[in-house]
Amino acid sequence: MTAGPVMFGRLALVGIGLIGSSIARAAKRDGLVDEIAISTRSQETLDRARELGLGDAYSIDAADVAEGADFVIVCTPLGACGPVAERIAGSLKDGAIVSDVGSCKCSVIEDMAPYVPAHAHLVPAHPIAGTEHSGPDAGFPELFEGRWCVITPPAGTDAAAVEKVAAFWQKLGSMTEVMDAEHHDQVLAITSHLPHLIAYSIVDTATNLEDSLQREVIKFSAGGFRDFTRIAASDPVMWRDVFLKNRDAVLDILSQFSEDLTALRRAIRRGEADTLEDVFTRTRAIRRGVIDEKQA
Amino acid sequence: MTAGPVMFGRLALVGIGLIGSSIARAAKRDGLVDEIAISTRSQETLDRARELGLGDAYSIDAADVAEGADFVIVCTPLGACGPVAERIAGSLKDGAIVSDVGSCKCSVIEDMAPYVPAHAHLVPAHPIAGTEHSGPDAGFPELFEGRWCVITPPAGTDAAAVEKVAAFWQKLGSMTEVMDAEHHDQVLAITSHLPHLIAYSIVDTATNLEDSLQREVIKFSAGGFRDFTRIAASDPVMWRDVFLKNRDAVLDILSQFSEDLTALRRAIRRGEADTLEDVFTRTRAIRRGVIDEKQA
Repeated sequence: MTAGPVMFGRLALVGIGLIGSSIARAAKRDGLVDEIAISTRSQETLDRARELGLGDAYSIDAADVAEGADFVIVCTPLGACGPVAERIAGSLKDGAIVSDVGSCKCSVIEDMAPYVPAHAHLVPAHPIAGTEHSGPDAGFPELFEGRWCVITPPAGTDAAAVEKVAAFWQKLGSMTEVMDAEHHDQVLAITSHLPHLIAYSIVDTATNLEDSLQREVIKFSAGGFRDFTRIAASDPVMWRDVFLKNRDAVLDILSQFSEDLTALRRAIRRGEADTLEDVFTRTRAIRRGVIDEKQA
Repeated sequence: MTAGPVMFGRLALVGIGLIGSSIARAAKRDGLVDEIAISTRSQETLDRARELGLGDAYSIDAADVAEGADFVIVCTPLGACGPVAERIAGSLKDGAIVSDVGSCKCSVIEDMAPYVPAHAHLVPAHPIAGTEHSGPDAGFPELFEGRWCVITPPAGTDAAAVEKVAAFWQKLGSMTEVMDAEHHDQVLAITSHLPHLIAYSIVDTATNLEDSLQREVIKFSAGGFRDFTRIAASDPVMWRDVFLKNRDAVLDILSQFSEDLTALRRAIRRGEADTLEDVFTRTRAIRRGVIDEKQA
């Protein structure tokens, strides 16, 4: 990471959790912006962001930080994207770029676009990076290094604005790809939303066990279960919104998964050794692909 | 790990994959045995074990290495436990302890006990440790440190033999617990077998996608999917046997999981935000339990 020229004058971050605070730390470290203005709706979180020194200006009101901003990134759960866009609309200056970091992109466009004025640019983005931790303390500037950031501009978006957003994420260490929002939502339903749903579900199954058995499950979790508990410790509100906002794509891949699981269940019940070994062998090839793509 | 007195004269390892080779490395490093004799049915793997210097004696025939052994540990996939017990039965000396490392314990007792002569002791064990890698090169002596090893002696097993097996695993750095085999199989169905089945199944769903979509799923796997690919890269034959041998307990927890997943699917379809947030919040408590137990 080499410091280059300043990319934006004022960066406004609305929402300062894991993602927002990681952006703030990286942008400050690398001198990518002149000023960082931070807004979040909880006074406690805003105070904590100030204590951590994440920004230069702070307000409970998103409209305040959007005022005069060259680049606004909404880093809230998906359900807040529309209300935030509505709130900041009147404060956006000429040529301001409005972006976000949400895990679904169709809903972001649907919820935000109606509020973004014609003199500003909506450039939705999704950094595919995260941990199971949340809140402003959880962020770190290296979070986006070597990870993909998918940018999903609606048809007709100003190409220079898209290019500036891509360049910003590249400065944070990410690789960028421009994609259609609907296609993004389908791919992410498979790579991220379904795995989280499954992890939440299997850990939920454990919460429904009688107490003594549950204690043993925790004690002997190293056999595979613990990896699911890590995923299922992700932010509940963020994920609630993901499933509400990407419902159709999630239900679609979930029904494919259920069919495949039923087939495996049948093979176990019938003692079909060859079927099981075949499936377990071909899944290894996918792992090799992940390693080859340096995403392991 | 401090070196103590030798615990066994001759240790025979039948099977020299990830687990067997890790035992060999740790036992040699800490001087726990006078001699390590290694057997595996593949000449190529046996040659590799010799190249790695994992033992002192090598044979394709398990009966050869069991000859004169004080402690025999069968480290094969579960399906081979019975045939190996039958093969070595005539070679076991007076007071020899026969153990294993299988992920199910009822089947091990059912398959091996009939062949273990009255003058030897069957003490099944299951070290809950592993990685997604397999084969003699994959082992390392620290694999068992801080992990549980569950010992499931059949009723009436010689207490001193159980104690020696427990002491051996403690020397490898493990915590040990004696448990009823049936209960072990129920707990592990939840903590290990179901998570592996789910991971295999979700990665299998990806293998069934059209090629271009599959490539994107691999590329953008960092959102959760990659963790499943790691688990689903585990040894296919080992896991085939786990599901065949622990069928009833796996099918039982799988049907509970399917119910819970169906309830989540229904909440998504109906847009029940509170239900989703409640489930995603309570699963965090289980993660805290895993961290508190130092198994994270």
